[in-house]
Amino acid sequence: MLQGLMSESERDSILGGLDEIQRQIERGEFVWRADREDVHMNIEAALTDIVGEPAKKLHTARSRNDQVCTDFRLWCRDATDSIIASIRNLQAALVSLAVRYEGLIVPGYTHLQRAQPVLLQHLLLAYVEQLDRDAGRLVDCRERLNFCPLGACALAGTGLPIDRFMTSNALGFTAPMRNSIDAVSDRDFVLEFLSANSITAIHLSRLGEEWVLWASEEFGFIIPSDSVSTGSSIMPQKKNPDPMELVRGKSARIVGDLVSLLVLCKGLPQAYNRDLQEDKEPVFDSVKTIIGMLEVSAEFAQKISFNQEKIKKALPAGHLDATTLADYLVNKGMPFRTSHDVVGRAVALCVSRNCQLENLSLDEFKTLNPVFDKDVYEYLGVENSIKKFSSYGSTGSDCVASQINYWINLLGLNKEN
Amino acid sequence: MLQGLMSESERDSILGGLDEIQRQIERGEFVWRADREDVHMNIEAALTDIVGEPAKKLHTARSRNDQVCTDFRLWCRDATDSIIASIRNLQAALVSLAVRYEGLIVPGYTHLQRAQPVLLQHLLLAYVEQLDRDAGRLVDCRERLNFCPLGACALAGTGLPIDRFMTSNALGFTAPMRNSIDAVSDRDFVLEFLSANSITAIHLSRLGEEWVLWASEEFGFIIPSDSVSTGSSIMPQKKNPDPMELVRGKSARIVGDLVSLLVLCKGLPQAYNRDLQEDKEPVFDSVKTIIGMLEVSAEFAQKISFNQEKIKKALPAGHLDATTLADYLVNKGMPFRTSHDVVGRAVALCVSRNCQLENLSLDEFKTLNPVFDKDVYEYLGVENSIKKFSSYGSTGSDCVASQINYWINLLGLNKEN
Amino acid sequence: MLQGLMSESERDSILGGLDEIQRQIERGEFVWRADREDVHMNIEAALTDIVGEPAKKLHTARSRNDQVCTDFRLWCRDATDSIIASIRNLQAALVSLAVRYEGLIVPGYTHLQRAQPVLLQHLLLAYVEQLDRDAGRLVDCRERLNFCPLGACALAGTGLPIDRFMTSNALGFTAPMRNSIDAVSDRDFVLEFLSANSITAIHLSRLGEEWVLWASEEFGFIIPSDSVSTGSSIMPQKKNPDPMELVRGKSARIVGDLVSLLVLCKGLPQAYNRDLQEDKEPVFDSVKTIIGMLEVSAEFAQKISFNQEKIKKALPAGHLDATTLADYLVNKGMPFRTSHDVVGRAVALCVSRNCQLENLSLDEFKTLNPVFDKDVYEYLGVENSIKKFSSYGSTGSDCVASQINYWINLLGLNKEN
Amino acid sequence: MLQGLMSESERDSILGGLDEIQRQIERGEFVWRADREDVHMNIEAALTDIVGEPAKKLHTARSRNDQVCTDFRLWCRDATDSIIASIRNLQAALVSLAVRYEGLIVPGYTHLQRAQPVLLQHLLLAYVEQLDRDAGRLVDCRERLNFCPLGACALAGTGLPIDRFMTSNALGFTAPMRNSIDAVSDRDFVLEFLSANSITAIHLSRLGEEWVLWASEEFGFIIPSDSVSTGSSIMPQKKNPDPMELVRGKSARIVGDLVSLLVLCKGLPQAYNRDLQEDKEPVFDSVKTIIGMLEVSAEFAQKISFNQEKIKKALPAGHLDATTLADYLVNKGMPFRTSHDVVGRAVALCVSRNCQLENLSLDEFKTLNPVFDKDVYEYLGVENSIKKFSSYGSTGSDCVASQINYWINLLGLNKEN
Repeated sequence: MLQGLMSESERDSILGGLDEIQRQIERGEFVWRADREDVHMNIEAALTDIVGEPAKKLHTARSRNDQVCTDFRLWCRDATDSIIASIRNLQAALVSLAVRYEGLIVPGYTHLQRAQPVLLQHLLLAYVEQLDRDAGRLVDCRERLNFCPLGACALAGTGLPIDRFMTSNALGFTAPMRNSIDAVSDRDFVLEFLSANSITAIHLSRLGEEWVLWASEEFGFIIPSDSVSTGSSIMPQKKNPDPMELVRGKSARIVGDLVSLLVLCKGLPQAYNRDLQEDKEPVFDSVKTIIGMLEVSAEFAQKISFNQEKIKKALPAGHLDATTLADYLVNKGMPFRTSHDVVGRAVALCVSRNCQLENLSLDEFKTLNPVFDKDVYEYLGVENSIKKFSSYGSTGSDCVASQINYWINLLGLNKEN
Repeated sequence: MLQGLMSESERDSILGGLDEIQRQIERGEFVWRADREDVHMNIEAALTDIVGEPAKKLHTARSRNDQVCTDFRLWCRDATDSIIASIRNLQAALVSLAVRYEGLIVPGYTHLQRAQPVLLQHLLLAYVEQLDRDAGRLVDCRERLNFCPLGACALAGTGLPIDRFMTSNALGFTAPMRNSIDAVSDRDFVLEFLSANSITAIHLSRLGEEWVLWASEEFGFIIPSDSVSTGSSIMPQKKNPDPMELVRGKSARIVGDLVSLLVLCKGLPQAYNRDLQEDKEPVFDSVKTIIGMLEVSAEFAQKISFNQEKIKKALPAGHLDATTLADYLVNKGMPFRTSHDVVGRAVALCVSRNCQLENLSLDEFKTLNPVFDKDVYEYLGVENSIKKFSSYGSTGSDCVASQINYWINLLGLNKEN
Repeated sequence: MLQGLMSESERDSILGGLDEIQRQIERGEFVWRADREDVHMNIEAALTDIVGEPAKKLHTARSRNDQVCTDFRLWCRDATDSIIASIRNLQAALVSLAVRYEGLIVPGYTHLQRAQPVLLQHLLLAYVEQLDRDAGRLVDCRERLNFCPLGACALAGTGLPIDRFMTSNALGFTAPMRNSIDAVSDRDFVLEFLSANSITAIHLSRLGEEWVLWASEEFGFIIPSDSVSTGSSIMPQKKNPDPMELVRGKSARIVGDLVSLLVLCKGLPQAYNRDLQEDKEPVFDSVKTIIGMLEVSAEFAQKISFNQEKIKKALPAGHLDATTLADYLVNKGMPFRTSHDVVGRAVALCVSRNCQLENLSLDEFKTLNPVFDKDVYEYLGVENSIKKFSSYGSTGSDCVASQINYWINLLGLNKEN
Repeated sequence: MLQGLMSESERDSILGGLDEIQRQIERGEFVWRADREDVHMNIEAALTDIVGEPAKKLHTARSRNDQVCTDFRLWCRDATDSIIASIRNLQAALVSLAVRYEGLIVPGYTHLQRAQPVLLQHLLLAYVEQLDRDAGRLVDCRERLNFCPLGACALAGTGLPIDRFMTSNALGFTAPMRNSIDAVSDRDFVLEFLSANSITAIHLSRLGEEWVLWASEEFGFIIPSDSVSTGSSIMPQKKNPDPMELVRGKSARIVGDLVSLLVLCKGLPQAYNRDLQEDKEPVFDSVKTIIGMLEVSAEFAQKISFNQEKIKKALPAGHLDATTLADYLVNKGMPFRTSHDVVGRAVALCVSRNCQLENLSLDEFKTLNPVFDKDVYEYLGVENSIKKFSSYGSTGSDCVASQINYWINLLGLNKEN
């Protein structure tokens, strides 16, 4: 595979020298010198120190422009893998949490108002679904960025007899990039990467918000264990859900990183401009932050317990079974709009009496509408309500159980987890 | 496919009434009433006016929450198709422009400083490559969003016997969404969509910048035709490249739209919150704007001519053939670093004499380094320089010609275009 | 004040014609023609139709560049006034709400965990303070933008004998801008304006979040009246706090508008570039939106009632009087850290017994630390706790009462409001 | 000023211990311990090590919540001062540069098309004006943030007898903040601060763009000295204007920092939330970056020279004196619109002949319109043109000279600078 640009012995000298440099770096013995400008020149100069003349051929048919892009794509490729692993880990933690609380019913909200009963499992799986699309975006991003700029040189390619397919292949890229100007000047691969991270971060900010709410005295759904909460010397009972507040907050810097990169690239003419040196820090920050957010969320999920008693006691509030009652009437042939009116009047009656729908007598139901029969009581109360949900993707016990199984298999979890 | 929720005659009434409403809307005869709250209630109420009682069954087993998401996904799906078509159109315009100027050499820049000669075709194809990834992102986005929320109802699904696979299929979705809470509460599909648009917009802002530069007196590369420029009553020779300034500027609102949606979704708990009503306008604006930017750019590409004489006259400035000369030396076995030093001294000599590299005599070259021979002149001058580029993806004539053919075939262009 | 550029009769013709055009516009009779490009050319052409030849002098010593900037500054100046008025209106609504609930104690939160008791008045005044700084920013912004670009012409000024101080003065500006290039090319005044709106919007998003929380079943602090909430046909008891969800959500578009303008201006060279045409829409949108948010918040404040009974019943949860108890010990000379330890043990005792601090006996207190005396009970319970706060700016009744008076006077409210 | 919370000897112990800690920190001898959580606890624990028991009173009547806000405001106050100093420094560098090139005429642009001649001084002063408003925004910001949160404690104030006016005064604040909840929970002061920095950054990005353009081969206006440019081993004549590319690029991270903080604060309920811990980094980054951008720009301004010969040679291109010629006709009583038509025809004649307006003969002028007389030649050519500008704020020599004097005085520059 020698292209005639160096002799075998020159090649061997260079490879040997680079191995030595790698060892020095790994042992922490390599001396980085600021006067040697950047990492590339440090390596080349060190190589010259070690092997002499052949080192002058190291930089043949390349430029810092294509080298930096190649390095950056390799780094991002690894980073997408790491983030995907962290996503899978959080999905697993959520599914495991769900498995631990099989059968637990919690209020489902719209407008942060209680609307319908849902299984906790169902709610947790909503996040698992979102995370799955997050992973999918990274997979697509990884595939799109995995093309090799090496050999684009400064911007126009080279007249030297290099084999870009060989180097691309050796570095695990799909293929060399087709256009050298594009190769050195575009940063869309990091814009796409940080967009993907931003969407994941927004998902996590929602999880953070929800768990902060649930940890409040007023909701009281979850109790974080001591290792994932902070207390107060004066109020030892306090369990501030700091990790999830930070998850919520750190979404901000990931969005900031994305905006930073978008502004950076706006209006730059071809090809390389020095502005692009500013592309690294937002990416490093975004990756480090999103992995932290995912890990912290997973740990939090592992270390919370649900206050089942308190949740159960609070469930009757909000007449969560009203829509199930309407379905009952629709199933009896009543038009949807009519059924809503009838149930609305039933709920109003309960509100005025400060009771639950299941506390109304059959006579009272029949007074509201003669269609009601004694089977109505099979539809009332949140537990009956949950049982009645049957549509694909709904919160019905069977539907949710099959989804749990789907994820257990997909994530390779042991069901006993 | 009747699920027992309505009779055949009720179904027929509803379908007939909806057809009638569609006709009224298409003819502009439908009266939209503000007191009927929104589009859903307007349709349902109009249906009641037309078919009476059966209309009360229209809303069976659905909610505005899942309807709105379904509509929005359908709209976005169509919009991605439209944008992809506009991208293909701009790619075609760029390739056609490239074909018109086969062989035209222009300076390639780094730091906006002249660096190496490149074929105009090569430069234009860099944008074609970028646009291709832009289209790829939309294809992925479209695939990921094409799942059906219908039947998720308010948030928990329903107990009524609906067939979500049938409705999903009828609407051209890949499958129904697996989790009803996820279905009504997440907006990641629009975040991904607007991210993709933002990246495209940044690409176009760069094209805008470049063409605005090129249209300046100082560069003088392009002359926009009157239909794509504005003049001045007092300076009839002026050709302001307004369309490309607007393309550059409008990238800003697309980024603003994305940020708006990211901020909107940040920290919202499950499931639907009214905040999400704000999700439509940024998306509509982003789509309308990006299509406009793509179309304007394509039209501009069709209506500019290159000032070949002026470009040619200015090409000698900047010693664009210096790196080709270095390649010459490397090919003769000289190490890269040494060749750079030698060429650097040759260029310095030219600068001091205010001449070009090709004006140096062979003796002068030999004084710099004995390796030089008379074949050196085959490497000098921008035209020779271009001929020498040979690496895959480089600006060499053959490389570029094969890329032009690649795109002509891929875009289905007639080569005579 | 004639500068010799037109005769008195020409001037009178022009003024008469412009008056006529104004009347036509006000009556809706003016015909705007798209073929006349923009508002300026429409007016000038219409003036020519009416007064003939003198109309050709209308545009003397000006350019659309300086005209547009002048118009835009006038518009923004008015807009800041309108927003400030809306801010004052919301402050008044919050103070009035506070006055209505004098003495109502609510939990104060950190980490959304109950921390200390605060007067509702105190909490509402926190927002009044924030809004006051918001108004202050607009006042500063208004002052900084109130300089006149007119006479900067295209970019370099003019050689015609105009009096920029006269026109500046006639339009109510502080002075003409000192540099014509700056005058036509910079848009910092709108960047500052939209920044101010963004900060206000973020403040309102926090109010929105808080009120959405308070309207939940779980908090149950506020009950929005029907006119500011939406219900459900099936759950007539539901009161979704939509307006405050929208206030929270609409903060997003105001941030988006700001980002849009920042991206727009980034990297534009001097002087006018057509990109700047894109500066209007984000500003119009930001102004309309922020005024809507302020008005909706004010109306919501006027139309909610606090569920005093529920709040009072829930107050004992969280041992809100613990820090007051610590202050008691510090006042007795105990070091702060020690006092925290002692109270921490007292709270732990209460938690284990599921009782309140005030339920501990004096003996029990003395067992914890001999410093306790029977006056300790004057510090326990949230009402006693509130009474003990005394530092300036604290939630102590007197402190808050004087702040309420401060705002009533400053906003010119009638105390009986 | 002892409030009875500690004895004189306790006070003296604490003060002595803190002095000792300060000395240790200054000498680099202080051992920061991660297990002591944060800076506050490190100091307090170290104080306990040194002075024992009295250290337990250190934290009396304060909380990390109000301490952090107080520290942060102090830090920001200093930072605004530093940035203002850097702004003044850049203004001085620009004025000095202007003074060096008195009389140099450059093209003024709209749409990056040559429009009118302007004095370089005039153009540079446009940036000086913008920077002045940037400083003004920081002054306003500083004034608004200079209120003292100390004593707000966790959120509700305290019952201990503290004197907030004394501590506020001792720390150089205008007054204590009026509302303790507002004091610990709001971060609008940093939002305003980062907004101000963003506007400055956008201004600098425009300067960066302009100077990068000017340094190109095509414009060729400026030559950066070696110390502020990078070259190439192979092209020693190259002078890449890297510092200004970085200035342009770094504007992006300042905008990103602002967006990050806006997203962070969006939708947070009262009072302190742990999310707010994320408020420091964007502020530190924004301050460090903006100061760097200002300093680099000032250095660049000091180290460039203008290529007067090249500029002068290129000035005839673009008929920059056309508007001056139109003013000539208007001064002779011709209506503005008519004058534009006449000059338009004159320019068209020049374009067809490839000559300048001053090359037209008087007969030719008279053929275009009889109003022309031989004094017309006093208005032609860019130097005559500049002389004719006379309006306040225009590019006329006298106008600009008086502005230069204005800034020399205001900035306290020695005229010989």
